[in-house]
Amino acid sequence: MKKVAVILSGCGVFDGAEIYESVLTLLALAEAGAQVQCFAPNMAQHHVINHITGEEMPEQRNVLVEAARICRGNIQDLAGLKVADFDAIILPGGFGAAKNLSDFAFEGDDCQVQSDVLAACQDFAKAGKAAGYICIAPAMLPKVYGPGVKGTLGNDASTADAFNAMGGEHQVRAVNEICVDEANKVVSTPAYMLAGSILEAKSGIDKLVHKVLALA
Amino acid sequence: MKKVAVILSGCGVFDGAEIYESVLTLLALAEAGAQVQCFAPNMAQHHVINHITGEEMPEQRNVLVEAARICRGNIQDLAGLKVADFDAIILPGGFGAAKNLSDFAFEGDDCQVQSDVLAACQDFAKAGKAAGYICIAPAMLPKVYGPGVKGTLGNDASTADAFNAMGGEHQVRAVNEICVDEANKVVSTPAYMLAGSILEAKSGIDKLVHKVLALA
Repeated sequence: MKKVAVILSGCGVFDGAEIYESVLTLLALAEAGAQVQCFAPNMAQHHVINHITGEEMPEQRNVLVEAARICRGNIQDLAGLKVADFDAIILPGGFGAAKNLSDFAFEGDDCQVQSDVLAACQDFAKAGKAAGYICIAPAMLPKVYGPGVKGTLGNDASTADAFNAMGGEHQVRAVNEICVDEANKVVSTPAYMLAGSILEAKSGIDKLVHKVLALA
Repeated sequence: MKKVAVILSGCGVFDGAEIYESVLTLLALAEAGAQVQCFAPNMAQHHVINHITGEEMPEQRNVLVEAARICRGNIQDLAGLKVADFDAIILPGGFGAAKNLSDFAFEGDDCQVQSDVLAACQDFAKAGKAAGYICIAPAMLPKVYGPGVKGTLGNDASTADAFNAMGGEHQVRAVNEICVDEANKVVSTPAYMLAGSILEAKSGIDKLVHKVLALA
């Protein structure tokens, strides 16, 4: 049985983890018989967005505490993740990946990856273990793997330019496709960078999970 | 194409809608080709629970605003639901169904159903339109349909007793089973009243969605 760490970035597409992507990832892993543990960084969210109006709310929320909503409280502080305990790591998307796990949404190719996230992801990279990055999460790949890493963010030119400016080699993919960097054992898929429906998101996420487990 | 209204009760199992159940319901409806609109009551949550510790947090959140996180902002105020626009209604579970949509978690068989929820659900009942109630949501069935309605809350004796004390006829079901009240066109399934995994929850929810659409 493969053991997979899933990194969540809050709870809700506009300030945290995209919920459909997160649940579809956990569902595909369960259907494949994988053993899963969710993690999130124990840190304040960048901000809180009203998901109806799109406006910022005068609140503070914690990424780990909010991410726990997705997985019924079964979650751990990312700072305690031990790479030796897992065969692979998967990061669903949502703006939380670009606002909490990194600041890509604000800084573009000048972005930084949050320290616990960077440490965990680089541990998997150095150990040669498989990884999956979904939606906007692949924007972190050049910071994790360094120059030459291949990944997809769909087909948006400015996002691809930022990926390449950081040293990555962006690959255009459709929503039902995956990008596989065999040398780095890292898989990516556009999901809601392109998806018009939950079924479209599922098509790429199912392929990503299948490939990550095959590489693990 | 069948049109289905899905009623959410917040975002997170302990104070709102159970996220796996909600997404699995929306996924099954999408896979069946149904057209879906999510709704939630525009009201304060009963309380906010830290999903890691289980403790109450000193915050106030709105059921409609938080439920919007699940469905990427595509949600409407339940007060505006017009039964003529839909063929069926489905209510996923989570404590939000027993703390926000009703007060069953606190009052048991003396519970009240929130006014917008009661009005919407009774409109579907009176119109003879199909309905699906998941997890703890079926606790509201006797208040919506009146004496003699059949539903399942799994196999917990005290919950079943409360259902029967309100005039319902509780039916024991396993997690992968549904209870069908053909006369009222209402389907129920235990989901996380019994589920030990997302796959177990999916087994019953898929059957419920299939049956609701068949009755619609």
